[in-house]
Amino acid sequence: MQYKSALIVGAGRGLSASLTRLLARERLAVTVAARDTGKLEALCNETGARAIGCDARDATQVAQLFEEIDRLGSSPDVVVYNASARMRGALAELVPAEVQRALQVTAYGAFLVAQQAARRMVPKGYGAILFTGASASVKGYARSAPFAMGKFAVRGLAQSMARELAPQGVHVAHFVIDGAIRPPGHAEDATRPDSMLDADAIASTYLDILRQPRSAWTWEIELRPWVEPF
Amino acid sequence: MQYKSALIVGAGRGLSASLTRLLARERLAVTVAARDTGKLEALCNETGARAIGCDARDATQVAQLFEEIDRLGSSPDVVVYNASARMRGALAELVPAEVQRALQVTAYGAFLVAQQAARRMVPKGYGAILFTGASASVKGYARSAPFAMGKFAVRGLAQSMARELAPQGVHVAHFVIDGAIRPPGHAEDATRPDSMLDADAIASTYLDILRQPRSAWTWEIELRPWVEPF
Amino acid sequence: MQYKSALIVGAGRGLSASLTRLLARERLAVTVAARDTGKLEALCNETGARAIGCDARDATQVAQLFEEIDRLGSSPDVVVYNASARMRGALAELVPAEVQRALQVTAYGAFLVAQQAARRMVPKGYGAILFTGASASVKGYARSAPFAMGKFAVRGLAQSMARELAPQGVHVAHFVIDGAIRPPGHAEDATRPDSMLDADAIASTYLDILRQPRSAWTWEIELRPWVEPF
Amino acid sequence: MQYKSALIVGAGRGLSASLTRLLARERLAVTVAARDTGKLEALCNETGARAIGCDARDATQVAQLFEEIDRLGSSPDVVVYNASARMRGALAELVPAEVQRALQVTAYGAFLVAQQAARRMVPKGYGAILFTGASASVKGYARSAPFAMGKFAVRGLAQSMARELAPQGVHVAHFVIDGAIRPPGHAEDATRPDSMLDADAIASTYLDILRQPRSAWTWEIELRPWVEPF
Repeated sequence: MQYKSALIVGAGRGLSASLTRLLARERLAVTVAARDTGKLEALCNETGARAIGCDARDATQVAQLFEEIDRLGSSPDVVVYNASARMRGALAELVPAEVQRALQVTAYGAFLVAQQAARRMVPKGYGAILFTGASASVKGYARSAPFAMGKFAVRGLAQSMARELAPQGVHVAHFVIDGAIRPPGHAEDATRPDSMLDADAIASTYLDILRQPRSAWTWEIELRPWVEPF
Repeated sequence: MQYKSALIVGAGRGLSASLTRLLARERLAVTVAARDTGKLEALCNETGARAIGCDARDATQVAQLFEEIDRLGSSPDVVVYNASARMRGALAELVPAEVQRALQVTAYGAFLVAQQAARRMVPKGYGAILFTGASASVKGYARSAPFAMGKFAVRGLAQSMARELAPQGVHVAHFVIDGAIRPPGHAEDATRPDSMLDADAIASTYLDILRQPRSAWTWEIELRPWVEPF
Repeated sequence: MQYKSALIVGAGRGLSASLTRLLARERLAVTVAARDTGKLEALCNETGARAIGCDARDATQVAQLFEEIDRLGSSPDVVVYNASARMRGALAELVPAEVQRALQVTAYGAFLVAQQAARRMVPKGYGAILFTGASASVKGYARSAPFAMGKFAVRGLAQSMARELAPQGVHVAHFVIDGAIRPPGHAEDATRPDSMLDADAIASTYLDILRQPRSAWTWEIELRPWVEPF
Repeated sequence: MQYKSALIVGAGRGLSASLTRLLARERLAVTVAARDTGKLEALCNETGARAIGCDARDATQVAQLFEEIDRLGSSPDVVVYNASARMRGALAELVPAEVQRALQVTAYGAFLVAQQAARRMVPKGYGAILFTGASASVKGYARSAPFAMGKFAVRGLAQSMARELAPQGVHVAHFVIDGAIRPPGHAEDATRPDSMLDADAIASTYLDILRQPRSAWTWEIELRPWVEPF
């Protein structure tokens, strides 16, 4: 794989940790960013990744995040946006300020991060920007309007960016994760093995997409457990 | 038609004016809302509609808009969200604050208005909430990421609301307007008649949807000129 | 409405009977075609429609059907394809010859009828060709592969035809009927009124689409009861 | 990878040859099937694949194909349906018998092959059935109705099968190949490198999908060259 460095925004214990481990094993220099970097310490110790604090909703903080990585000499070839805010509840009872915040985390933050990534990748003519979507990216469920709004918006962003940036050499891909990811430490249901998405398995498909030659790029792929109704 | 009153948010000279005229002709009490109500005076004089100033991005102003209509005794049976902010430009060059503002006009305002509508319609068990979409609701075009984000988000909102509110008696519909609407006063291209969407023709389909019996409701419909490539 | 005559292929007691009544009331000369015309006698007596026997899978019979209507002087301005063969069962247990037959009724017959319609409408520069779809047109359900194949195929046909024929003045529309149509004589569930699609309500939306001015045509619209999960 | 043997139906010089080489390199026993096996001789010599003649439209021949492979002791764990018949032309001018034939090659043959595959895979609880789609699988182009019909039908089949068979352990996947595959021997456009899909690159993504753990399966993925408009 041609890529040397990666940034994962919205890092935590699940998919982002699996991605960090896998990309580090592939010898990429990985930076993980989250509002609270305390929770990332063990992952960084394990993988050699570097953690930087950043609120992805804040244009200035996002710009500073990329500038800091630039200074350290590893401007990311791969950027993954993995942050989102899930909200549930009857539409009539949602609190507007919380809805606004959720849209900013899920969608506006995705734009801010993607823009900084694009500014660095387009001039050099390569790079990859990956977005983690959900069932709600393609289906608006009842009592889940803000999550559908945010995830649909990210899909629109990713599709627009794929059309704009692919011919400039930047691979943009959107992953529809259609099911629940098994939380770390969560035991398998013995009567129903592999019924939740394994984070390492998802990360492995992210890596497949990063390895695609540019004559056959994917912009969207969905993933679900074999037993998941759809 | 069972509906007696309507509110159109994001009113101007095009589709919203046609809708105002058509709904007034059907004897609905129509309120039109926009940030600048000055431009609505002629339309109100012509149709008997009432104009109220409102910035749809502001939760307090949206709540006040509905309260004012409540006080006047015509809490809307039909609510149309028609506001949006179109932005074009290379992703790398967009100004974050303008992107944020565009998302708030197109998507967050849609949520605020829809929520106030739902709070009034669900208890009475009927009503209709209509969203005006665009080509960008279903296709993310290059150099148009913020508009795609906003319009995809509105589609997610509308789909989630349709799933949640239809079984409570509220008809939610999303219109994909796939082409340019002929601006008022814009002459027809004589060599290519009807090649732009006529606002009255669109309004007429909105009315068809409002008249559907609840045993056969539509949640999404697209409209384009006969000669429009798609 | 500009249209003067209609042909409905795949006529029976449900939607096609409602359409026949509604179009006859709008003063169109209606021809109904089915393999077995005996069952259409009452409908013809009631509405003045004419019945012609035709197996829609047979290119010669379909050509003769249109020729016979031509001779009677009412070459159809509106053609509705309403025939389909539903099959259920585990994929492994389906009988190939029955699958082939189902595809021919649902999809190949649609092509044969649409082609004869197009040959007559394109030269005069107007007309409408409508296809009745189902949930299976956009979603492939388990244990229902042949119906999904047939209905997906019809949707592909309708979309291709809309792109090809709309700029030649012919309106092509595809209706996704997403739910069960209440059979004639079937009593309403009193605790859940309007929970099945009413055939007259569907027919009424077909008429709305036929009345659209060409500056704002729809190629696809879905219909479902207010209480239908989707 | 757990799979030991593969069958590729609709084999020729392009994608199927790349797949044959790649799967043979992965030590799968590969059978290639086509109406005319003469053209497969060089490929078989090169890769050790076995060629069997079969007209995929014929239920008896398809059953015999699988029985022959059974007898040879390598009942396929992986089955790829790669055959299709492309037809272009104004709808009004198409020859019905040719349309019928195209539907049988593209869609009915896919069913026949998939059914034989499912009958063998479901009892053992694993296997993979892959369908090669095209742009026309998701978009009906003008003057291309029969190809849209066939490819939409295959997508409906694949989606229905994924819902039915995945919970029985069989991985069903549909590949939307959105662009032209560079024919063998066709020189690169030097001013526009990688502007056509490379068959080896596509095959490599097929292999990625075959390697997915069942907790994170894909049923649909699209592939296009970086410079392809979409």
